[in-house]
Amino acid sequence: MNQLMTKEELNDFLEKEFPQVNKNFEILKVSDKNFSMLMHISSEHLRPGATVSGPTMFLLADVTFYLATLSIIGPKSLTVTTNCSINFLRKPNEKNLISEARILKLGKTLSVGDVLIYSEDIDEPVAHASLTYSIPKD
Amino acid sequence: MNQLMTKEELNDFLEKEFPQVNKNFEILKVSDKNFSMLMHISSEHLRPGATVSGPTMFLLADVTFYLATLSIIGPKSLTVTTNCSINFLRKPNEKNLISEARILKLGKTLSVGDVLIYSEDIDEPVAHASLTYSIPKD
Amino acid sequence: MNQLMTKEELNDFLEKEFPQVNKNFEILKVSDKNFSMLMHISSEHLRPGATVSGPTMFLLADVTFYLATLSIIGPKSLTVTTNCSINFLRKPNEKNLISEARILKLGKTLSVGDVLIYSEDIDEPVAHASLTYSIPKD
Amino acid sequence: MNQLMTKEELNDFLEKEFPQVNKNFEILKVSDKNFSMLMHISSEHLRPGATVSGPTMFLLADVTFYLATLSIIGPKSLTVTTNCSINFLRKPNEKNLISEARILKLGKTLSVGDVLIYSEDIDEPVAHASLTYSIPKD
Repeated sequence: MNQLMTKEELNDFLEKEFPQVNKNFEILKVSDKNFSMLMHISSEHLRPGATVSGPTMFLLADVTFYLATLSIIGPKSLTVTTNCSINFLRKPNEKNLISEARILKLGKTLSVGDVLIYSEDIDEPVAHASLTYSIPKD
Repeated sequence: MNQLMTKEELNDFLEKEFPQVNKNFEILKVSDKNFSMLMHISSEHLRPGATVSGPTMFLLADVTFYLATLSIIGPKSLTVTTNCSINFLRKPNEKNLISEARILKLGKTLSVGDVLIYSEDIDEPVAHASLTYSIPKD
Repeated sequence: MNQLMTKEELNDFLEKEFPQVNKNFEILKVSDKNFSMLMHISSEHLRPGATVSGPTMFLLADVTFYLATLSIIGPKSLTVTTNCSINFLRKPNEKNLISEARILKLGKTLSVGDVLIYSEDIDEPVAHASLTYSIPKD
Repeated sequence: MNQLMTKEELNDFLEKEFPQVNKNFEILKVSDKNFSMLMHISSEHLRPGATVSGPTMFLLADVTFYLATLSIIGPKSLTVTTNCSINFLRKPNEKNLISEARILKLGKTLSVGDVLIYSEDIDEPVAHASLTYSIPKD
């Protein structure tokens, strides 16, 4: 799969379209094989038990798969999630999160794949999400 | 199923344990048959297309099923989500959201059920989530 | 939602299009509010532990939601499942299964909803599936 | 992760515990990194549209993740699926299916991971399932 957007273009897109949240996210790697992001964790993302909340991990999975899809199809901001199934595997530390996306199908109307989420200082993944995005017609 | 926590006790619990988010939520109804909440939507919850973001609806589903479970088992704050599958059905308005939880199984270690999410001014549900929570041992 | 197919028309459709499996299934109720089926369980559907296998419950959920959708849109046999998330709640008996479908969204291209599965002689549901079907263009 | 069961032991287990279905399955590879199976497809697995049915792919995903888990924990036949979310990505041919399992978490009570399913003669996967199995106490 060829890319239509570079790391810089995706960061600009995020800043322009999602000004509420973009400061928490950083795109680490964009290539035809890999798409990876970092999420800066602060007190608003924590929950009882000295850990990161589930909705925070869902947010990172959702943003990661959205941008991984846009990196291939271009800046169609109205691409929307239709389904996400997420398994929470281990308790993350109160540290930053790292995500890795894999696109399993990219058709004209749907993008389907999954995202692994890691907590800094833990080798094994803390969450795994499968996502489907609906791509608007041009 | 008998309730161990009233609406007032759940609101106090939310304020004490989740000070970051509690101001957005209001518990509407707690009975042995019904559990319903309202989420106040503001600009931070919106996304391109004049609609509410997917992670916002996930957050409401997660909080709703968590509190519906605690209303029966009592204030075990370390109860954690292990799985959530969410379908986004329709585009919400830029209005408040309302949720309704249904518990399908409440065992010693797991609570399983689903949540329907409605947008004010739309009759049909905008999202449907199935959730599993793991209940810690006493 | 108005129905385009009656119970008899759906039974005929099942017999013609799915001759391998139709003898196991019986449609109990078809109305604009309710869609319910019965699956006859025999030794081929069992697994260790004196219970019905997970794939058997998946099959019933899948057939039920397929026919519930066709009862409204008509006999479009190429309608296909795109996603299913199923939770297994309790161990069924070695008895027949009963299913109840609920359609949450029926658009031009997608049908989304859920199915509860019951085991004869157990009051509470044994499984809960959320399904998405893709509807072919005419 | 170390293995407790070899390919031969798993085939014997399948033949003894699942006599109804074992003839359709063949274990291709069992190692600490890879677990792969083949399913022989015959007329009973097909559906309208000259393709393999969804429940057949679910069955393969379920059996594959079950045996991948048992290859590490040993022959605990009462290990049961608690959740599966499956995405159907492409129409399979009327050919045999091949599966590849990945274990993301193996704790004392739960095994969580995913399975990719391929159709002979198609490079890209035809289905992707995320599964959770509950492991009985000794």
